[in-house]
Amino acid sequence: MAKPKKTPRPKAETPRGFRDYFGAEVTQRADMLAKIAAVYHRYGFDALESAAVERVEALGKFLPDVDRPNEGVFAWQEDAEAEKAGDWLALRYDLTAPLARVYSQHRNDLPTPYRRYAMGPVWRNEKPGPGRFRQFYQCDADTVGTGSVAADAEICAMLADCLEEVGIERGDYIVRVNNRKVLNGVLEVAGLSGDDKEAERGIVLRAIDKLDRLGVDGVRALLGEGRKDESGDFTKGAGLDEVQADVVMGFMQAKRSDGGQTCARLRELVGDSKVGLEGVTELETIAELLSAGGYGPDRIEIDPSVVRGLGYYTGPVYEAELTFEIKDEKGRARNFGSVAGGGRYDDLVKRFTGQEVPATGVSIGVDRLLAALQAKGRLDTATQGPVVVTVMDKARMADYQAMVAELRQAGIRAEVYLGNPKNFGNQLKYADKRGSPIAVIEGEQEHENGVIQIKDLVLGAKIAENATLEEWRDRPSQYEVARSDLVAKVREILELYR
Amino acid sequence: MAKPKKTPRPKAETPRGFRDYFGAEVTQRADMLAKIAAVYHRYGFDALESAAVERVEALGKFLPDVDRPNEGVFAWQEDAEAEKAGDWLALRYDLTAPLARVYSQHRNDLPTPYRRYAMGPVWRNEKPGPGRFRQFYQCDADTVGTGSVAADAEICAMLADCLEEVGIERGDYIVRVNNRKVLNGVLEVAGLSGDDKEAERGIVLRAIDKLDRLGVDGVRALLGEGRKDESGDFTKGAGLDEVQADVVMGFMQAKRSDGGQTCARLRELVGDSKVGLEGVTELETIAELLSAGGYGPDRIEIDPSVVRGLGYYTGPVYEAELTFEIKDEKGRARNFGSVAGGGRYDDLVKRFTGQEVPATGVSIGVDRLLAALQAKGRLDTATQGPVVVTVMDKARMADYQAMVAELRQAGIRAEVYLGNPKNFGNQLKYADKRGSPIAVIEGEQEHENGVIQIKDLVLGAKIAENATLEEWRDRPSQYEVARSDLVAKVREILELYR
Repeated sequence: MAKPKKTPRPKAETPRGFRDYFGAEVTQRADMLAKIAAVYHRYGFDALESAAVERVEALGKFLPDVDRPNEGVFAWQEDAEAEKAGDWLALRYDLTAPLARVYSQHRNDLPTPYRRYAMGPVWRNEKPGPGRFRQFYQCDADTVGTGSVAADAEICAMLADCLEEVGIERGDYIVRVNNRKVLNGVLEVAGLSGDDKEAERGIVLRAIDKLDRLGVDGVRALLGEGRKDESGDFTKGAGLDEVQADVVMGFMQAKRSDGGQTCARLRELVGDSKVGLEGVTELETIAELLSAGGYGPDRIEIDPSVVRGLGYYTGPVYEAELTFEIKDEKGRARNFGSVAGGGRYDDLVKRFTGQEVPATGVSIGVDRLLAALQAKGRLDTATQGPVVVTVMDKARMADYQAMVAELRQAGIRAEVYLGNPKNFGNQLKYADKRGSPIAVIEGEQEHENGVIQIKDLVLGAKIAENATLEEWRDRPSQYEVARSDLVAKVREILELYR
Repeated sequence: MAKPKKTPRPKAETPRGFRDYFGAEVTQRADMLAKIAAVYHRYGFDALESAAVERVEALGKFLPDVDRPNEGVFAWQEDAEAEKAGDWLALRYDLTAPLARVYSQHRNDLPTPYRRYAMGPVWRNEKPGPGRFRQFYQCDADTVGTGSVAADAEICAMLADCLEEVGIERGDYIVRVNNRKVLNGVLEVAGLSGDDKEAERGIVLRAIDKLDRLGVDGVRALLGEGRKDESGDFTKGAGLDEVQADVVMGFMQAKRSDGGQTCARLRELVGDSKVGLEGVTELETIAELLSAGGYGPDRIEIDPSVVRGLGYYTGPVYEAELTFEIKDEKGRARNFGSVAGGGRYDDLVKRFTGQEVPATGVSIGVDRLLAALQAKGRLDTATQGPVVVTVMDKARMADYQAMVAELRQAGIRAEVYLGNPKNFGNQLKYADKRGSPIAVIEGEQEHENGVIQIKDLVLGAKIAENATLEEWRDRPSQYEVARSDLVAKVREILELYR
């Protein structure tokens, strides 16, 4: 006889590609985002929080020839009994598509230009990989409805302020600005502006983007016939001749120590190209506006090697790079690299309204910037555990509760041990697991004498590690103080580890 | 000949039941949640942020007899090419189900007891209604892994602290505590404890929950034969006799001005019921612990009329009610009512692990609490618009940029007008739309003289409204100051409206 079948227990696991964040992981990110929000706010940007869910149609992610949305989004259909049964809904995959929808929907009520910031999770229905999750944070600021490059300049300055506000020191970052119009002008001069040259332009753009990795010779090879990499694989080149390649290489290497000189060199390179000249003038204006605001080339510089992606941008592009070195997985020193970027794009709401509305915006890579702060030791790594009031006598729980209430009212993070108090060792193990700086002990004897024991767990751990060191030997890590001195003594110890 | 068919433009609209939040709506909520998080943190609770997406199985929302998840959640299947193709994923519908999953999954790494807080959006696939959205915020704190009612007492104290921290004054709220065990004891005494009495127990619980609305007579009717409401509809009662109904009514009205007296009265009512006596003892302990922490009955009281839902809770239950009056839609004064509630539940992780793990927790109604703060005028309603530096001469954009840079560096929210500057009236309209307190003007004449005009827009608006009033007539709303006094004068005016 078969046993009656039991429903198996569900597995307690996160879906593939998702993760949980605990304690400091949550609060460090929240702190960083709050600091960035404060800078955005100071620059006149208004918060916008749209829902996580959008109509797939509004996201522009519906594949026209099939009956399902783009694979890159998480999507589902409204239930049969819903008012709009069958409509496809989806989780947003970035914060720009919802901005386009919101601006189109509410444009009569919004100021023009509209400066908005948004921060929150986005979702990608992609194959997860190491460190690549299907839900992650974005943190954007965009100005919609103005073609003035003053908007681009302002965002570059704001980006510099944001980095300093969260703890990246001046000198440890550089905001680099370029202009797609200049690049287009250079391509025109190189004879690559025709509709039939799109493939070549693509190869050139990708080649420029690889300067860091391939060096001048590698890029040059890609501009010409092509390049064989270390593995022997051959990448076809753009097929430019020497003269054409010289123009492109000249553009990429046009950076001078002084922004004015860089612009002068670019002006030479774009020759008579109308769009190229327009781009150079815009860069000059940006440099002038930034300089007037006190943002010199130590913080923001014009750098023609910044390309940023392919088809999207139409004018100024910018990128924030952290310039200090970190060790990679293999122990090699390398620059930390880009943590934010953006630029001008002009087709934000055209899909909805038919109108071209110019916009420019930046996206800060939340996780990368957090990692950078971690690498620089700029995160609040001070022990965040609570003071633990131990329970020596279960019947006197009210006394212990009174102690934590006093500590909390003094603004000190504190808790009473709420597990089974029988084994005192377990209480100290708990305090250790919580990262507690201090344990408070009041046994029968102490209670009778009106005193308490205050254990400095940070010092205690150090002494345990360095038991032979003279300097620790004579320092007590436990103090007996009057019950009435609880808050004062705890505060004194906490001050040591601030 | 038919014209070639164009793809219609997508509609720019939020999906049904979702909405966008703008500016102060976002920052006010963020501020409130940050204050609550600080209190939670001070009480030793650790942040937890799980992903928005869970496996439907882990949510316990899979209907066993059908091949689709519960209608109440937004769910979809992993794509065919995904590693776990066909798995159902869903958006979380609360923060408790993810806590259960997280605690089961990570219990070996988490401290026991585990105090955690979580705040964030949750999603319900329900029919939206006025003010009822399919995405909304929850803000929870739970203690997992201890049966000690000290955990319940602590959460009640924390709830009181949270309300005061966000701006609800002492006297404007009350945290009410009850215990389901006492209620069970009372039902036992009334002869309603058998398995065959479940329907009657349900009617009794729902009747008690309606005391506020129906009054003593209405509840009494529901305990007996039943009740006919104003519309003539009849609700069947629990069919209790006089003696039984007296016991239940006695319980509901057991509240005395002093917690000790309330407990004494409850002790009478539960008679010999073991569970009932246990419940009364727990309430006494909670009252003692709270009193030791300084939380008297002006803030937290024992109130047997608190029931909170039906099957879920197993011990102490608690609820925070705001006691001030507001006007409802029809202009009638009524109490604001409940903004938070919770209690003890013991089957949190049993579904995953088979073990019973006791837990207790609270959920704050984010939107209701925000509405309460709004009603009390406790939200930061000070004008949050930026100082607008107007553009009188497009060629001198750099000068204007320098002004906003100075203001921003002084911590003042400021922006330069980035729209088309031709029409000065439009610039002032923009400032008005932005809620700007101040406009800064520097035309050619001012520039030559090294001065600027600073327009107090708040005062300007008042003068415009009250043009006949003597008090305004002689007050200028525009000041000419030296360019070098920009920051000082702006700050002086902003101080007036703080």
